[in-house]
Amino acid sequence: MTQHSESTDLDPVKREIMEATYRALSKHGYGSLTIQAIADEFENSKSLLYYHYESKDELLLDFLDYALTQFFTAVRVRDAPADDQLRTLVDNLVPETLPEDPYRVQLAMFELRVNAPHDADCQAQYLKADRELKTLLESTIQRGIDSGLFAAVDPEIEAELLLSLLTGTRTRRLTVSEGFSVDTARTALLTQIRRLKGDSDAPASADDSDTGS
Amino acid sequence: MTQHSESTDLDPVKREIMEATYRALSKHGYGSLTIQAIADEFENSKSLLYYHYESKDELLLDFLDYALTQFFTAVRVRDAPADDQLRTLVDNLVPETLPEDPYRVQLAMFELRVNAPHDADCQAQYLKADRELKTLLESTIQRGIDSGLFAAVDPEIEAELLLSLLTGTRTRRLTVSEGFSVDTARTALLTQIRRLKGDSDAPASADDSDTGS
Repeated sequence: MTQHSESTDLDPVKREIMEATYRALSKHGYGSLTIQAIADEFENSKSLLYYHYESKDELLLDFLDYALTQFFTAVRVRDAPADDQLRTLVDNLVPETLPEDPYRVQLAMFELRVNAPHDADCQAQYLKADRELKTLLESTIQRGIDSGLFAAVDPEIEAELLLSLLTGTRTRRLTVSEGFSVDTARTALLTQIRRLKGDSDAPASADDSDTGS
Repeated sequence: MTQHSESTDLDPVKREIMEATYRALSKHGYGSLTIQAIADEFENSKSLLYYHYESKDELLLDFLDYALTQFFTAVRVRDAPADDQLRTLVDNLVPETLPEDPYRVQLAMFELRVNAPHDADCQAQYLKADRELKTLLESTIQRGIDSGLFAAVDPEIEAELLLSLLTGTRTRRLTVSEGFSVDTARTALLTQIRRLKGDSDAPASADDSDTGS
């Protein structure tokens, strides 16, 4: 709808609300976020925001959906080899460095996740994220097998492994913080991806310069 | 100290408080848990409980430590082959069924985990859990390599993979609930363990009856 849309056909007002939410989350985090704090970041009429949303959690669920769409737009590498697609996912979900702003937003999304067991709408949103990521992983692995790049693995099982691995790595990074080694975590993830090629004896090194990509 | 201690030398009063906490958590969950609800489950003098703990979160951190000790006592299979030890860990952390009581306690521990980024004591406790589990995984994998059961993998990287896998599987189970297939998750975990033996072409089946254990 808007000509400025990079990736989605989101209503321009909703997009502005989502961008205001990102700024508010990166300033305040989830715990001290109020709908007023989001309104303060919103350049348009405040009443428009209150017209769209009654509560912070309702707004955050829409934000989660928005962030998910942005994420999938950013990480889909069309026509790239399957292992490059998987490494792009790792780079986006477990980046080498996590500056303060995206850290706070990632943490807020994790804190919101804790509501999922108690809130059907929240659970549906996290289930959607889980399924979409698994579908992308599975189709990528299948593509890698079809192209002869990956060994004849079971795509569903390998997608399940990578999805739990990525989820667990992010959970650990956020919650054991200082005791977490992102280098070790990334080396482990890249080892798991390299193993799909059947290089089971490949040394556990994060250097993938041999893939010619 | 107590003759009834199954596994630890915990002060008998503390043990009673911990058992009362388990009952209170399994009844109320984390969200609606109060220190009064724990006191209601405590058969000893209530003032003893208030003497030991000022807040619910302080008590829950001790409970987490207690649960961790209980867990490691339950899962260490001395002199068992390394793959049996790893499967025992999977059976304990990702059981086929999760009845209501342990589900509520597991969920409470997950909800408490969300405090870790904001609370140094809480973070220290989760870091301890993370490190102890990783040490057990790594030493088990090393033992499997030394005994010739496992291929010459990198024990630290494989321990990192299994730790993130187990953490992520539990996070997903709790938060996408109905959309989570425990069968697929367990098959994936057991595939990852079997792969340590170098059976990279092994079919993705949860049947491990060929190990002769």
